[in-house]
Amino acid sequence: MIYHAPVNELRFALQVHGRLPEILALPSAAGLDQDTVDAVLEEAGKFAEQELAPTNRTGDLNGARLVDGKVLTHPDLAQAFAAYRDAGWLGLRAPADYGGQGLPAVVSAACEEMWCSANLAFSLLPMLTLGAIEAILSHASDEQKQTYLPNMSQGLWSGTMNLTEPQAGTDLAQVASKAVPKDNGAYAVSGQKIFITWGDQELTENVIHLVLARLPDAPAGVKGISLFIVPKYLVNADGSLGARNAAHAVGLEHKLGIHASPTCVMQFDEAEGYLIGEAGKGLMYMFTMMNHARLGVGVEGHAVAERAYQAALAYARERVQSRDIGGHSKTPVTIIHHPDVRRMLLVQKATLAAQRALYMQAAAAIDTAHGHPNADEAARAEAVLNFLIPIVKSWCTDNGTVLTNLAMQVYGGMGYVEETGAAQYVRDVRITPIYEGANGIQALDLIGRKTAADGGAVARALLADGQSVAAKLATVDAELGAQLQQALALAEQSVADILAQMTSNPELAAAASNAYLNQMGCTLGAVALARAHLAAQDALADAANAPLGEDFYQTQQHVTQVYFTQVLPQIHTHAALVHSGSPALLAVPLESF
Amino acid sequence: MIYHAPVNELRFALQVHGRLPEILALPSAAGLDQDTVDAVLEEAGKFAEQELAPTNRTGDLNGARLVDGKVLTHPDLAQAFAAYRDAGWLGLRAPADYGGQGLPAVVSAACEEMWCSANLAFSLLPMLTLGAIEAILSHASDEQKQTYLPNMSQGLWSGTMNLTEPQAGTDLAQVASKAVPKDNGAYAVSGQKIFITWGDQELTENVIHLVLARLPDAPAGVKGISLFIVPKYLVNADGSLGARNAAHAVGLEHKLGIHASPTCVMQFDEAEGYLIGEAGKGLMYMFTMMNHARLGVGVEGHAVAERAYQAALAYARERVQSRDIGGHSKTPVTIIHHPDVRRMLLVQKATLAAQRALYMQAAAAIDTAHGHPNADEAARAEAVLNFLIPIVKSWCTDNGTVLTNLAMQVYGGMGYVEETGAAQYVRDVRITPIYEGANGIQALDLIGRKTAADGGAVARALLADGQSVAAKLATVDAELGAQLQQALALAEQSVADILAQMTSNPELAAAASNAYLNQMGCTLGAVALARAHLAAQDALADAANAPLGEDFYQTQQHVTQVYFTQVLPQIHTHAALVHSGSPALLAVPLESF
Repeated sequence: MIYHAPVNELRFALQVHGRLPEILALPSAAGLDQDTVDAVLEEAGKFAEQELAPTNRTGDLNGARLVDGKVLTHPDLAQAFAAYRDAGWLGLRAPADYGGQGLPAVVSAACEEMWCSANLAFSLLPMLTLGAIEAILSHASDEQKQTYLPNMSQGLWSGTMNLTEPQAGTDLAQVASKAVPKDNGAYAVSGQKIFITWGDQELTENVIHLVLARLPDAPAGVKGISLFIVPKYLVNADGSLGARNAAHAVGLEHKLGIHASPTCVMQFDEAEGYLIGEAGKGLMYMFTMMNHARLGVGVEGHAVAERAYQAALAYARERVQSRDIGGHSKTPVTIIHHPDVRRMLLVQKATLAAQRALYMQAAAAIDTAHGHPNADEAARAEAVLNFLIPIVKSWCTDNGTVLTNLAMQVYGGMGYVEETGAAQYVRDVRITPIYEGANGIQALDLIGRKTAADGGAVARALLADGQSVAAKLATVDAELGAQLQQALALAEQSVADILAQMTSNPELAAAASNAYLNQMGCTLGAVALARAHLAAQDALADAANAPLGEDFYQTQQHVTQVYFTQVLPQIHTHAALVHSGSPALLAVPLESF
Repeated sequence: MIYHAPVNELRFALQVHGRLPEILALPSAAGLDQDTVDAVLEEAGKFAEQELAPTNRTGDLNGARLVDGKVLTHPDLAQAFAAYRDAGWLGLRAPADYGGQGLPAVVSAACEEMWCSANLAFSLLPMLTLGAIEAILSHASDEQKQTYLPNMSQGLWSGTMNLTEPQAGTDLAQVASKAVPKDNGAYAVSGQKIFITWGDQELTENVIHLVLARLPDAPAGVKGISLFIVPKYLVNADGSLGARNAAHAVGLEHKLGIHASPTCVMQFDEAEGYLIGEAGKGLMYMFTMMNHARLGVGVEGHAVAERAYQAALAYARERVQSRDIGGHSKTPVTIIHHPDVRRMLLVQKATLAAQRALYMQAAAAIDTAHGHPNADEAARAEAVLNFLIPIVKSWCTDNGTVLTNLAMQVYGGMGYVEETGAAQYVRDVRITPIYEGANGIQALDLIGRKTAADGGAVARALLADGQSVAAKLATVDAELGAQLQQALALAEQSVADILAQMTSNPELAAAASNAYLNQMGCTLGAVALARAHLAAQDALADAANAPLGEDFYQTQQHVTQVYFTQVLPQIHTHAALVHSGSPALLAVPLESF
């Protein structure tokens, strides 16, 4: 269960897909250079390997417990969190104005991959804190920012997101928690929230809950929902901690995985809360941080699969069983020699490379959208980001389940035994297609707001961009180039299909949305690996331009070949489903299921 | 977590795919008629629903434990087993000559689906006992049969299979356990066996271990392996139980799922054992029961997914969330209205129908192979069976993971919470692609012994048979007919591809074997559902010939439509992988993974 931080892979992905040189040239990255980024990756890798990775199984075996109203976690986690905080990792992308380091999203995404690989359940605590920081930074008053952000950016206080209620999951319009104005300008917040990750814990001095609730006179539906800060401990005027607020964890869920992270039922009983921004805009405020959160979940799905792959690879290199099929050996060989084991491993490796490329592209779009001085460039990046986010979130997390199961299969019977750790990856990763907007919701987002809303403009621009990559690829490898051109043509047809269905009958498009999303993920992944292939070609042609060594770049070209022949052919299935799969689904009477 | 035995689906599958009228006409089925079969299914369904299904979660929560050398399971399991035994269910397909009922494989397979849906972990105890019965019946001496089979057929004694050792999993040639002749004609069996399902327990009076071991002078490799009966308690000449034998469970695995069933490390310390048949033929003897066991595991993968589907469907009919996309409703609707939820449910339903069809075909082939008076017919059935077995085993179990995960996804966040039961199905089913020959081994079996060995004759015969079904289908529905013809043409091409690769470079075929197996499963599933479509068409045309009611047959036709548009398109991906996917895999140097 050792974890090796894939620092070289991350450096390569940062250059090729994260457009690091461009990002470092943005005014918002002033003072940061390539050497510093390299140093950050090295140190983060060490921290993930040495401090976090060893806590993964301990945390799984010793899940969070609710004892006498307190949420208790294993001491190893507290120790790891203290080390993480003290090393400044939490503040990596927290705002510099409030004690964070304000690093670009591409750099922090690379680090987040490593945190999530090392210990997914742990990583959710800083991830949610950063989400809360982002919401407060974007919408709260200066006084509120001063009160909460410095301590949160340093990891002294954590942040939580209280959205879901039993009757309001995907459908947040049903939120029923109430906030009644008090004499002191604050609000008395009451209600029950469920599925609150790290909703309470003893690792930080305070927990800052962001809570969706309704004012007494609020209209029904989403426009009546406001956002409140509800601290676990009230904060005195001098910044010291005051009274315990009536915000309590009253239950923990028994989950398939991520045992180390408490998933709380939170009870608010006239807890003191403070309105963020304007009343009625709570959901909109939450959505401003959704892109980063959804990108983060995509990284989670990817990261757990990366670690599972490493474990399966190590096992395949060590386990001796049966002679090789080619008959080269007279004695049993390590199972990595067996072609089907190679298939399982390389499908993982190739898919991981494509996933890393896509999340890096999305992170670069965040940096460009937020930091590019040219408004048109920033807007273009924002549009690309909006298109990529549901894809990164869903494709990397559905793949997460597929890939961790492939990793388990490499182990054979040993994979089913919990001690080897393969099972934990399968269990842990399974939350990622569910939370932060179930993948079905992501697919609806992709066909609606992200495709139909602009008449397919961004989708087509990305595919056109892909065509220029394919043209270059064809000059290096005619067959790969032709494959990519065919894939792009199929994707263009699917965009047209979805646009037509959205006009003629949106239910058809909705029934095809999952296939459309997977086709886009698979195709854009191929475009990205085509870019990687070309970059590797350049590096191999010029040793001075090949800092990671010849073998590394040759491996990237192998990875592209494997992806094109083993993963990309999935598009034929997806395209068929988008084109004509839905009518049969919709024709089945609901009582005939 | 209620389970509804799908008795009507099973009756339909028995008629159409299990060829029940033909099977009942075999001499081996003398005395059995349609009404009796219907009654058996009804009673088995009730037993599964009422006695077994409620023990599923109890067994999961209260896993087997090893205490003071005894393997303890939850009392509910003992009670359920006693009821199961007393009702005669264990003996359903046990030999009539030794106290069983000797029912056809098609009927017992239908019942086994229900046992496995109701409680997979429980079902393994009778399943393994039946495997041991089969091995003893086929290869042991008359005296051995008389000593063990009557009590085993009644479920008073259980049977176990002791094959795997730490260094000998897939590669049984590495078995190292020893058997040294004793003065009394018996053998002293010593060694450690792992992954022994229900290796010990307190539910039966005795446990009859079948153990692979080597005689002192045995050659290395598979030809040195012999099979021994090693009872937990020695059996006295009068049939009473004697001394405790030195065969002990010394450890239990901590597994991802099937917690109720103990997976034992078995230690044999000069335990008294009795040679079955001839020395050196142990592995061959084991293989004679392998077909039935592998069919059984395919049924397991299918059955757990069936129950997961039922649970997800019930949730989707009950959970209210968001308005419908078509805008027909002003208020939130049950989530079954949402097209992507319908997709998830119907892909499960359609795949389940195809799986049930394939395992029924295989079971009918067992009955025909064993019972047909015409030797040619029997041999033909045997060949079909041999081809189908790796497909049923792998396709139904890999699908098992996919389908149970789809079921969990329907639940959203509630699916990740153990209390809803969706997680248990995901955990339990995951053993099925691993044990009884990992699915990679099944795929090698399919390309080698089952395809290349006869030059593709059986494969092509099955596909030719499919073409005649497609021709009939085309007269009823031209589009479905054309789709099936296209699928069969692709499958024929893949047979040719595999045969060519087996000749040119078997490693290419091995790397493509998984895709080939999945393509065959997917395509033969379509042929089967085409048959179902035609049978439903006949029933709908003649009410006198429609015992299950008009709605039932209309639903079967919907299921075929969904399968053809949502599941069958996977063949395009599989065919591409078979045709040209392997070279890139094999080109990657092992050190570059």
